[in-house]
Amino acid sequence: MINNRIDLIRKKMLENKLDFYIIPSFDPHQSEYVACHWKTREWASGFTGSAGTIVISKNEACLFVDGRYHVQADNQVKGTEIKVFKEGLVGVLNYMDWIEENASSGEIVGFDGKVFSYKAYSDLLNKFEIKNININYNFDLPGEIWEDRPEIPSETVMELSAEYCGKTRIQKIDEIRAEMKKAGADSYIVPNLDDIAWIFNIRGKDIPNCPFAISYGLITMDSAKLFISKNKIPEMVSKSLKEDGIDIREYDEIYEELKKLSAKSLIFDPSFTSIFLLDLIDEKVKRIPQGFIATKMKAVKNSTEITNLKKCQIKDGIAMVKFLKWIDESVPENQVTELNVSDKLKDLRGDQELNQGVSFSTIAAYGPNAAMMHYSASKDNFKEVKEKGFLLVDSGGQYLDGTTDITRTISVGELTEEEKLDYTLTLKSHINLAMARFLKGVTGYYIDILARKPMWDRGMDYKCGTGHGVGFFLSVHEGPQSISYRKNDTVLEKGMVITNEPGVYKAGKHGIRTENTLLVVEDRTTEFGEFLKFETISYCPIDTRPVLKEIMTEEEIKWLNDYHKTVFEKLSEKLDKEETEFLRIKTMEI
Amino acid sequence: MINNRIDLIRKKMLENKLDFYIIPSFDPHQSEYVACHWKTREWASGFTGSAGTIVISKNEACLFVDGRYHVQADNQVKGTEIKVFKEGLVGVLNYMDWIEENASSGEIVGFDGKVFSYKAYSDLLNKFEIKNININYNFDLPGEIWEDRPEIPSETVMELSAEYCGKTRIQKIDEIRAEMKKAGADSYIVPNLDDIAWIFNIRGKDIPNCPFAISYGLITMDSAKLFISKNKIPEMVSKSLKEDGIDIREYDEIYEELKKLSAKSLIFDPSFTSIFLLDLIDEKVKRIPQGFIATKMKAVKNSTEITNLKKCQIKDGIAMVKFLKWIDESVPENQVTELNVSDKLKDLRGDQELNQGVSFSTIAAYGPNAAMMHYSASKDNFKEVKEKGFLLVDSGGQYLDGTTDITRTISVGELTEEEKLDYTLTLKSHINLAMARFLKGVTGYYIDILARKPMWDRGMDYKCGTGHGVGFFLSVHEGPQSISYRKNDTVLEKGMVITNEPGVYKAGKHGIRTENTLLVVEDRTTEFGEFLKFETISYCPIDTRPVLKEIMTEEEIKWLNDYHKTVFEKLSEKLDKEETEFLRIKTMEI
Repeated sequence: MINNRIDLIRKKMLENKLDFYIIPSFDPHQSEYVACHWKTREWASGFTGSAGTIVISKNEACLFVDGRYHVQADNQVKGTEIKVFKEGLVGVLNYMDWIEENASSGEIVGFDGKVFSYKAYSDLLNKFEIKNININYNFDLPGEIWEDRPEIPSETVMELSAEYCGKTRIQKIDEIRAEMKKAGADSYIVPNLDDIAWIFNIRGKDIPNCPFAISYGLITMDSAKLFISKNKIPEMVSKSLKEDGIDIREYDEIYEELKKLSAKSLIFDPSFTSIFLLDLIDEKVKRIPQGFIATKMKAVKNSTEITNLKKCQIKDGIAMVKFLKWIDESVPENQVTELNVSDKLKDLRGDQELNQGVSFSTIAAYGPNAAMMHYSASKDNFKEVKEKGFLLVDSGGQYLDGTTDITRTISVGELTEEEKLDYTLTLKSHINLAMARFLKGVTGYYIDILARKPMWDRGMDYKCGTGHGVGFFLSVHEGPQSISYRKNDTVLEKGMVITNEPGVYKAGKHGIRTENTLLVVEDRTTEFGEFLKFETISYCPIDTRPVLKEIMTEEEIKWLNDYHKTVFEKLSEKLDKEETEFLRIKTMEI
Repeated sequence: MINNRIDLIRKKMLENKLDFYIIPSFDPHQSEYVACHWKTREWASGFTGSAGTIVISKNEACLFVDGRYHVQADNQVKGTEIKVFKEGLVGVLNYMDWIEENASSGEIVGFDGKVFSYKAYSDLLNKFEIKNININYNFDLPGEIWEDRPEIPSETVMELSAEYCGKTRIQKIDEIRAEMKKAGADSYIVPNLDDIAWIFNIRGKDIPNCPFAISYGLITMDSAKLFISKNKIPEMVSKSLKEDGIDIREYDEIYEELKKLSAKSLIFDPSFTSIFLLDLIDEKVKRIPQGFIATKMKAVKNSTEITNLKKCQIKDGIAMVKFLKWIDESVPENQVTELNVSDKLKDLRGDQELNQGVSFSTIAAYGPNAAMMHYSASKDNFKEVKEKGFLLVDSGGQYLDGTTDITRTISVGELTEEEKLDYTLTLKSHINLAMARFLKGVTGYYIDILARKPMWDRGMDYKCGTGHGVGFFLSVHEGPQSISYRKNDTVLEKGMVITNEPGVYKAGKHGIRTENTLLVVEDRTTEFGEFLKFETISYCPIDTRPVLKEIMTEEEIKWLNDYHKTVFEKLSEKLDKEETEFLRIKTMEI
């Protein structure tokens, strides 16, 4: 079937005189998770991972995947003509370099410019220029072939009132225009779904676990247009948008609108805006490439959002405590599997006020499975949890008053000394970052080493970032800030929310991660400047059973005991007597 | 006198149709310290600071200085028509912005392109383009007026044998050519004096405290040319250079040589190569702007250099211990001033084998004077050291087998609790960095917070970098690596040498700094990667009298005691009985 699809694509390539054809993993909004309609790469290859690129030439079909998917890709393309290129391994080319090496002067590389960012396109262009390789991006070949292609989702849109999110869309658009003015721009295109949801105070259900509605935004100094299928907007929401001066257009009308855009200059984010959209715009409109205005604004939560988020985190903590109690009781009865953990958590969160489902597919990984950072159990492949080792559970919820993301590694039985040591190191890393105090003006890159230090001191490391931003009833992964060894120029600001999730991953042995959400708050102002610090706003006990107290510093022990005191205070009044007793034990001082 | 000079410059400006004239602080080699011949800014303004820029217009004469020189500039231009612009203060323009604001379309800005880097020129060009302000860089107006201008220095050049520096010039040039090949370049211009000294294994005396010879280098795939006044090369050195295939030309011949350069492409460092030199080169030669090859190479010390450097550091430590003993004995007798400290240190270092003088003007600052980071005592203005507070001494030596840089803050009597606390925090910062272990691949920017953390935890900070590279019998400040909150992309590599110098500076109160030199060495290789760490290679006791042991961690106390044990072992056998006893007491465990 896959080989047949590839052959059909080759036929179309021939018809259109293309020598290479690229299928990336993206939708027109460069979303982290894409709706089925845009899963063309999956359709053409059978590979279901979240990232990866197919390149088809006359004789070859290649799938390029990163370290997360080396094994999965091999398994999923077995029996097809597709060759897997494992990026990150020594000597393995990425897809751009592979094309550059294999294409001859004058050959043409095709793809669908609607799902290619301007940045990705520019990178290709620069690379191909030297060898005189041409690009033609006007072909959605899978779209021409794919018979039962799913429709673009059209789920109902809701309005998120300022009671929850703290600011009206009118306020937000006014603030955006002020920033546009500063940047010397009179128009601003918004293709990314989370910014659209934030700006217009709407939430959708088009993408699983992400409350987004497929749409585009376009803001000028005197208009704010929302391009979205009108079918999915209820009368009340439509009325409210119109009352606020929002011009609602059909999704596809963005093309015509951009063609006739008469602005002097346009702000666009090169990483999110497609080359197709940009090329529709008159050349006279000056392009101003910069990070999106709304992305930066929404990263700094306002006081209403912060108040709500803290309430939401308490509810999430309640669900988590009930879950931890269930684990402690059910594992000895052999009633826990990697699969039913997800269901249990979904139900417990669903019982909480204002819950809107989960914020991502729960990662429940038992034993060595947890060493795979992106492990996900399936009906065909899951483990039962025994009374031995660790169960790692990374989960989160969507609520009208916030989005949560929390990981606990639970001791479900006997532990080895190595497991205890690695657990304690992870905890030390977590606490070291949680306690950080820093001068205003620094980035998450600059403070990242605070989390890694306890591990590096012992020759250990985790090969991923330490923390990511979190949306407010939006995406569980939100930029632009991050805490990572990867460079990031975004300065940490008061009101930003970011996760704290160091871990230890040992293939074939175990995986450990302890994750809370941090809020950036004021520390103090002295003659040396303004200092910031973190407030931990996830409230859930951290398993103390595996802790090797002898390698913790007094400061670290104090942090843990203080944290558990806070957790007990915040949660106990909403729990029944038995649960309170459970929490009392779980939050006892070490 | 100054006003007269400015008027003469204005006259010349009029003759040459210039509306503005810029005088920077640089020489044609963009040196950190410049020979008197190029001190045109000092000549034209009377301001003697190491950095600052003069701009003269028809009606105004402006001196732009950074925070180090706000006070000094005011004092030194008093009574002249010069207006001081204090960069860093709110609303104060830098010289480029000031010209942009004050020049009209079509006006011409002049300067001497020989002392202007390509980068500085490009920055001006970009800024002026919008307003249609023109640039003409062919005028050294002070040079036309300055009657008793000092000659370009012409001190005798020596050869540094591979016995000291570990590699012959032939080896170095071969390695450079290999890097040129990788970069696709067949020529490479070397205008910066420390790289020239390193490549050709020569040392000069043209610049105080820096063993450089005014010269240019030009390397192609089949030639290596050294442009230098032949007068200053002794017969033996000349013979040796020629035997190694070095083509020695007169200093000024670089111009003709560049005009006829027939290479395909040229590597140049935009921050060090003058616009004047670059513009001599045929347009057909492709320019490859990148950091200098030799700068990166010389930053990583080879094994011979490291062996020698450690010997050199022991000698320097001997001098320092004798100095500390002298301080302890002489302060109570009122025999120490900020001035005679420098002389004493110069003498003590001079007694050491292979010494070649000091590596920079000693900073000896008593009491509140130490809060000024760039304080220097003078015959007209110096303090006597009393039995109270701290004496900060930052000094270093040049030796055939290395360059040193060390700071000790010495308790010379009674201390306040605040002084003790700040001293101990500085020590904690110093130790935290000295103990760092880090994954290969990180920069000095990434690890900087390790030094700042003990201070930030108490709302304190120091407004400067934490450490800089050090040359091998070269400049005491050497790039490209640094440890700083200022971004720096240079990865720390095994064999790099870098200082560790956190401090506390409280205006009107005191200044504290503890500085050692670190060598980057292997830590270990594990399944998580290759780890590096630092070896402290300055050997000199750190005053323990001010230490508040109760705020030190056990790890920090252990580091200090271990360090002192090493210091005693390395130095004691070269000291007399009295000195050994002094060192024994100074290195006692706390």
